[in-house]
Amino acid sequence: MARPPSVRIVEVGPRDGLQNEPGVVPLAAKVALINALAEAGLTMIESGSFVSPKWVPQMADTAQVLAEIDRRDGVRYPVLTPNLKGLELALASGVEEVAVFAAASEAFSQKNINCTIAESLERFAPVLDLAKAQGVAVRGYVSCVLGCPYQGEVPVAKVVEVSERLIAMGCYEVSLGDTIGVGTPDKAKAMAQAVAGVIGVERTALHFHDTYGQALANVLACLELGIATVDAAAAGLGGCPYAKGASGNLATEDLVYMLDGLGVDTGVDLDALARAGRAITAALSRTPASKVAQALAAKAG
Amino acid sequence: MARPPSVRIVEVGPRDGLQNEPGVVPLAAKVALINALAEAGLTMIESGSFVSPKWVPQMADTAQVLAEIDRRDGVRYPVLTPNLKGLELALASGVEEVAVFAAASEAFSQKNINCTIAESLERFAPVLDLAKAQGVAVRGYVSCVLGCPYQGEVPVAKVVEVSERLIAMGCYEVSLGDTIGVGTPDKAKAMAQAVAGVIGVERTALHFHDTYGQALANVLACLELGIATVDAAAAGLGGCPYAKGASGNLATEDLVYMLDGLGVDTGVDLDALARAGRAITAALSRTPASKVAQALAAKAG
Repeated sequence: MARPPSVRIVEVGPRDGLQNEPGVVPLAAKVALINALAEAGLTMIESGSFVSPKWVPQMADTAQVLAEIDRRDGVRYPVLTPNLKGLELALASGVEEVAVFAAASEAFSQKNINCTIAESLERFAPVLDLAKAQGVAVRGYVSCVLGCPYQGEVPVAKVVEVSERLIAMGCYEVSLGDTIGVGTPDKAKAMAQAVAGVIGVERTALHFHDTYGQALANVLACLELGIATVDAAAAGLGGCPYAKGASGNLATEDLVYMLDGLGVDTGVDLDALARAGRAITAALSRTPASKVAQALAAKAG
Repeated sequence: MARPPSVRIVEVGPRDGLQNEPGVVPLAAKVALINALAEAGLTMIESGSFVSPKWVPQMADTAQVLAEIDRRDGVRYPVLTPNLKGLELALASGVEEVAVFAAASEAFSQKNINCTIAESLERFAPVLDLAKAQGVAVRGYVSCVLGCPYQGEVPVAKVVEVSERLIAMGCYEVSLGDTIGVGTPDKAKAMAQAVAGVIGVERTALHFHDTYGQALANVLACLELGIATVDAAAAGLGGCPYAKGASGNLATEDLVYMLDGLGVDTGVDLDALARAGRAITAALSRTPASKVAQALAAKAG
């Protein structure tokens, strides 16, 4: 296994990021963010979630977002669809890709979606069947892969098992989420290696939160396995309201800066990306949680 | 070359950190910080600088700091001494170790201390001679090892040359400073490897600023060379959010968290360290620039 020559970044700011911000962002700002991210060269932009607005008011306008963005050739705009109703709404919006979400921690599954991991996977079966019938690709997320806010340790074997089930059910890829950002490089690499060894490195993606400042170092360690898909959020948007102490995603700007320096191609224009991050954080009345964005702004200003 | 079983952390918060904060911290707060850092298990705590108070008012009370701290057995409290006068003041304060500071960038040397690199090294010669005669250890810093704000690229050969000169003049160790934090892991590792290949890995230390969020990943890469000394600042001190081009140090808390996770011993108690960082940032009226410190505070609160 060697470091990949290029990395596909899955930009999760408009969904995982904004969903976990305290404020609700106006529709126009979301549309502008997604268009700016595509303009910056990102080709996978998670754009919303079809979930009850009672639970996640920040995503209530996902259908309008999808209707108003400028869809670019070569760019995918997946959305989260936790159930069949969500998928039906997504299909009505003309999506080409959706995502489902399971936990590797029983305690987290119970607290977060009020069912066992096995039950949550059963719920996804009809979603995956309908998506397949409609020719819509499905990405799988596994949360708590390096620790759980409720049960602490999460066995690597459980992460592997859930990942394998998601692939068996029809997901084309599994994104491994360190939801509470507690992982460190050796543990992250060992976990990712165990999963990639079963589902294949080409089906394995990384989704590391930066709660303890470890996300970039963890990505660096996992790149050595040949993993070539990494999730990140512009300006380090978000966190997780259901995971106590969780903070934002790995900032896309900081990831791109590192990959540029390593000579790993991303196709992303860092300055354009940083502008997109500054615009959305201005709409949130705060500065970007990206060191690169802050440094570039200081240099410019 | 293999990752070291333990890392000696050189805590630079009270000097490199506070020196680059906009506010002047009261003497009592500095003394409390240094004592708390020693209490947390740090054994090398850079405690001040004997430099003109006209240039660095934040360090004007270094003699009083050294007089008032509780000196612990097994802990060293080095200070920066840019010239003979500084060393004489340091000796009068009973220090057992001092540090000198050269640049690997000609442009930076000219702008920062108004002389060539060669001239700056000549100035240090009497400092090193007197220190040797007095049995005082001297640490050497090299700045701009991965880039310069004035000249951009800095040749690795120049970093090696300056490091070698400092060792030849009598420094027991050279700390490689990425002053503006522009480095990425492969470049950091290649530079450190070139230096360690000449002066020895046991004489090579890392001093990476986190301007672009890369410091921890850079340390991770360099640990693979066997380098076992890393500089960091509690709470990421020195990263003033209001100053243009501000570039904080790697936060000691985030470094300790990673090393703990990697099973690399530091002898530092993370909770006690985080408390020290919170106390000094409270004195500066801001929150710690350490993700670990923020996460631990959120968990506790």
